[in-house]
Amino acid sequence: MSAADTPPPSPPLPPVFDAEFRASFETLILWRRDVRRFRRDAVDPALVHRLMALADRSPSVGNSQPWRFVLVEGAALRDQVRAEFRRANAEALAAYHGEQAALYAQLKLSGLEEAPVHLAVFVDPSTEQGAGLGRHTMPETIGYSAVAAIHTLWLGARAWGLGVGWVSIFDPKALTHLLDLPASWHLVGYLCLGYPEEEHIDPELERHGWQARTDLKTRIFVKP
Amino acid sequence: MSAADTPPPSPPLPPVFDAEFRASFETLILWRRDVRRFRRDAVDPALVHRLMALADRSPSVGNSQPWRFVLVEGAALRDQVRAEFRRANAEALAAYHGEQAALYAQLKLSGLEEAPVHLAVFVDPSTEQGAGLGRHTMPETIGYSAVAAIHTLWLGARAWGLGVGWVSIFDPKALTHLLDLPASWHLVGYLCLGYPEEEHIDPELERHGWQARTDLKTRIFVKP
Repeated sequence: MSAADTPPPSPPLPPVFDAEFRASFETLILWRRDVRRFRRDAVDPALVHRLMALADRSPSVGNSQPWRFVLVEGAALRDQVRAEFRRANAEALAAYHGEQAALYAQLKLSGLEEAPVHLAVFVDPSTEQGAGLGRHTMPETIGYSAVAAIHTLWLGARAWGLGVGWVSIFDPKALTHLLDLPASWHLVGYLCLGYPEEEHIDPELERHGWQARTDLKTRIFVKP
Repeated sequence: MSAADTPPPSPPLPPVFDAEFRASFETLILWRRDVRRFRRDAVDPALVHRLMALADRSPSVGNSQPWRFVLVEGAALRDQVRAEFRRANAEALAAYHGEQAALYAQLKLSGLEEAPVHLAVFVDPSTEQGAGLGRHTMPETIGYSAVAAIHTLWLGARAWGLGVGWVSIFDPKALTHLLDLPASWHLVGYLCLGYPEEEHIDPELERHGWQARTDLKTRIFVKP
């Protein structure tokens, strides 16, 4: 690949991020939400592509770029995806009892019905890109790279006014099969994208009484 | 916890991110690097804490916040960590042959010697926070949450002019034992933090001939 094929996507000098940017970046982190309540308005496909291109610049182990972006567009296919979700969710519900089960059943756990964009993100652990560097003792880092890509896309989406919901209530193998993907691929996250109906600074699960955030102090440890 | 205990950390109205912020955010993503070449200058502990507090607002499955931040400060302990890295890295090197082995041996794969801050991020899969929501079919999402926290911290660090290097060339169980942490915790990433010696828009592994980035088109799939 010659230099002429790849125009620099950013100024050649290291950027300096100022206090105003940092404050806005912190605001972005605080206001990113897992969104399950979407308007049905379409999202410009060019914007979705731009977010995938941005996500493609995420960190990856050995520079392996192991994420695979699968846009699920067919109406019949989406129906099958929703059926898979309902099946997995009924199974998850069966693990709870009493009041907790009643609360779980009331939670809205996905925007699969309304979200105009369905983006399934898989990882290909069989990729030769990166030649295995960094994966010898921690093979799970290949999936972690796909998580970083999802997180980049999520933050970018929020900056453009879009919401993202990460649905993990799926049997990953069933999804690989349903979407007719190579058996070696593994589902990392099934994302719903669209314009949110509501915006909140508090997590949906906190607002609806499932789980509040807890004190950071309990999560920091110092080893002398 | 009463409302009085938790002053709103951000304006109560949903923020609007403008084109200038979005452009800077894209620049941040493009210039985030895995840094292995650090200056030895100290980093203000308050800044490290601020970055951990920001990372603590990352998405987590079931709002479980399962990340555990372990600051490794003792000089003797750091020596043992570096010895573990050398052991794991020698093992990794043994998996390569010929020219690839020679190239691997020349790569600088960590800043463990120079970085002023060592931050090991673990996940506690045994946490009861979140009551298992979202983890029934994809238990790996608990580790994914810790990855999102690392990625938030990484981006925040870059915005403040700091570099982060994620070292995955460790036997996770050996690190849990060495740092005297609960056996159920799992290492997600051992992070080196500090001011970078150099800044680049291209990944270190690309610049040194190990692995270039490849074309995004090969990673996008559409399912009708």
